[in-house]
Amino acid sequence: MTELRRDPVIGQWVNVHTDDSFSPQHYEVEDQTPRHKARCQFCPGREHQTPPEVDAVRERNSAPNGPGWTVRVVPNKFPALKIEGGIDSVKQGMFDMSNGIGAHEVLIETPEHGKNLADFTEKETADVIRLYQNRLRDLTNDRRFKYIIIFKNYGESAGTSVEHAHSQIIALPMIPKYVLEKIEGAKAYYEQNKRCVFCDMVAQEHEDKERIFSENEDFVAFCPFVSRYAFEYWIMPKEHDSNFAQINDKKRNALANILRETLSRLKNCLSDPSYNYYLHVAPVNTGGEEGFHWHIEIVPKLTRTSGFELGTGFYVVRTSPEAAAGYLRGARPKLAV
Amino acid sequence: MTELRRDPVIGQWVNVHTDDSFSPQHYEVEDQTPRHKARCQFCPGREHQTPPEVDAVRERNSAPNGPGWTVRVVPNKFPALKIEGGIDSVKQGMFDMSNGIGAHEVLIETPEHGKNLADFTEKETADVIRLYQNRLRDLTNDRRFKYIIIFKNYGESAGTSVEHAHSQIIALPMIPKYVLEKIEGAKAYYEQNKRCVFCDMVAQEHEDKERIFSENEDFVAFCPFVSRYAFEYWIMPKEHDSNFAQINDKKRNALANILRETLSRLKNCLSDPSYNYYLHVAPVNTGGEEGFHWHIEIVPKLTRTSGFELGTGFYVVRTSPEAAAGYLRGARPKLAV
Repeated sequence: MTELRRDPVIGQWVNVHTDDSFSPQHYEVEDQTPRHKARCQFCPGREHQTPPEVDAVRERNSAPNGPGWTVRVVPNKFPALKIEGGIDSVKQGMFDMSNGIGAHEVLIETPEHGKNLADFTEKETADVIRLYQNRLRDLTNDRRFKYIIIFKNYGESAGTSVEHAHSQIIALPMIPKYVLEKIEGAKAYYEQNKRCVFCDMVAQEHEDKERIFSENEDFVAFCPFVSRYAFEYWIMPKEHDSNFAQINDKKRNALANILRETLSRLKNCLSDPSYNYYLHVAPVNTGGEEGFHWHIEIVPKLTRTSGFELGTGFYVVRTSPEAAAGYLRGARPKLAV
Repeated sequence: MTELRRDPVIGQWVNVHTDDSFSPQHYEVEDQTPRHKARCQFCPGREHQTPPEVDAVRERNSAPNGPGWTVRVVPNKFPALKIEGGIDSVKQGMFDMSNGIGAHEVLIETPEHGKNLADFTEKETADVIRLYQNRLRDLTNDRRFKYIIIFKNYGESAGTSVEHAHSQIIALPMIPKYVLEKIEGAKAYYEQNKRCVFCDMVAQEHEDKERIFSENEDFVAFCPFVSRYAFEYWIMPKEHDSNFAQINDKKRNALANILRETLSRLKNCLSDPSYNYYLHVAPVNTGGEEGFHWHIEIVPKLTRTSGFELGTGFYVVRTSPEAAAGYLRGARPKLAV
């Protein structure tokens, strides 16, 4: 049997296979063995091959753009958007357009080529998150930017050609469609119910229990009722929190732990699959930031998008979130100390 | 330089690389050599391995579910949605859901294993389109269905594991999100301008010229100004037309010709890439079908979706539609007679 489920925030439908869910063995995953260490531009000693760093976690007394760092942020050498210039919006016939202003940065998560975020220590993971926060704060100072998306591509089928562990940060001069839909959906839900839709979602998941597979004092990890992809999961603050950039040391460590712990479960459960994750934080410089409950969405790349999904925006999920959470709960994380 | 372009129908943004567009050689495509003829369930003589056919183009006097067909439609053996039952909508806590009612059919486009739609004759292609129309009309008779999506996956990275040329038809009990956004966007545009947004788009493309790469009396093929994918193109009726199911013999032949001709250009331009296409037709059984200008969207699979696209719904296009149309215009189609 299958079930049609409707997302309570953006109204998207998914078709979930409930009683014939695919197990992890149904999915083919690619080999993640590192191959390109010899010419990796993200490795220590090759700092001059990237643009000059904009931030880093470094040993005391080490100089910028040389070794001695543990996390390092540099502008992308081949940026999707350019930082210089004003935003000139023009009409071209019936179409709206503007020049491609924005920022595009790369966060190198570790000096060790081939080291996997799932195998980081708490401190290593927390340092990555701390630089996410720093960059978000710093880029917010540029009033041209309205949204900053932090994301990670792991593995070739998740869209990366660089195997050295890294995240990316893109600052945009507008709020992108998917985020805008979420914000507007959350606002509509609030107007109707006087409650945050994501707070309600956390409460509902705690009540239902079966889709939660990991949690700690501050965060919960669950496969959402309306998953779009098999083994998709979200990490969400348990208490309403609209300001990712300001989370304190305690919460940062708690986030570091649930992130690496759940990534380790994912790695062991599905034989190290490729995945994407992204942070959905509140927009910046727009005045309406308070309401949004930030969270992280992790999407393993296990299947190919077909013409059905492309043409409809309707997703077919062959492993139900309930079954996926069961598998992830059963997978043992291996935590580095 | 890059440009930010905003879709006039659904408000989606794309980031187009304009002066450093990737050429066709930049993209890696997979080998499409057929490998699985020996155990193909879609080949003639194995008709009993599929569910009984619901429609076919057949030699006079040939019996259903045996050889003698040129196009054949059967229910999908592993349907995403099941045809039996009522639509029981229920609330599960804060979530809406219903059972997975729908139809899922496979249209086998040719008896010849390994034959490519790009290499079909006019008649062969027109017969495929005729059965698209038949199925659309027939499924519309089931009042439970509100939208019928016809789509095709060609090649493994486009999401198919079956190499024998086929399309799929899925009937849904609701209008899916992407289609609904298009319909609502077109309605809003009409209310503001008193003109069909797609008619305006055809006019604008004719005025700009540079994104059109093929046309005939009834149809135009162009890479849309707001392409989401490199070498994406749309085939659109030149005159406003809301009823794909009713297009006559002349238009069907014109559509067959532009479809196979543009697919042949795509094949030769990009070394036979995987692709998806889908028909965006008007909804059914909802009462509001007149306004929608149907069209086909063809999306080659040349890149992997990254966390940026997933997290934002914002697309980065490394070949501008203007450049892509130039390459497709220059690629010679080879037309079967």
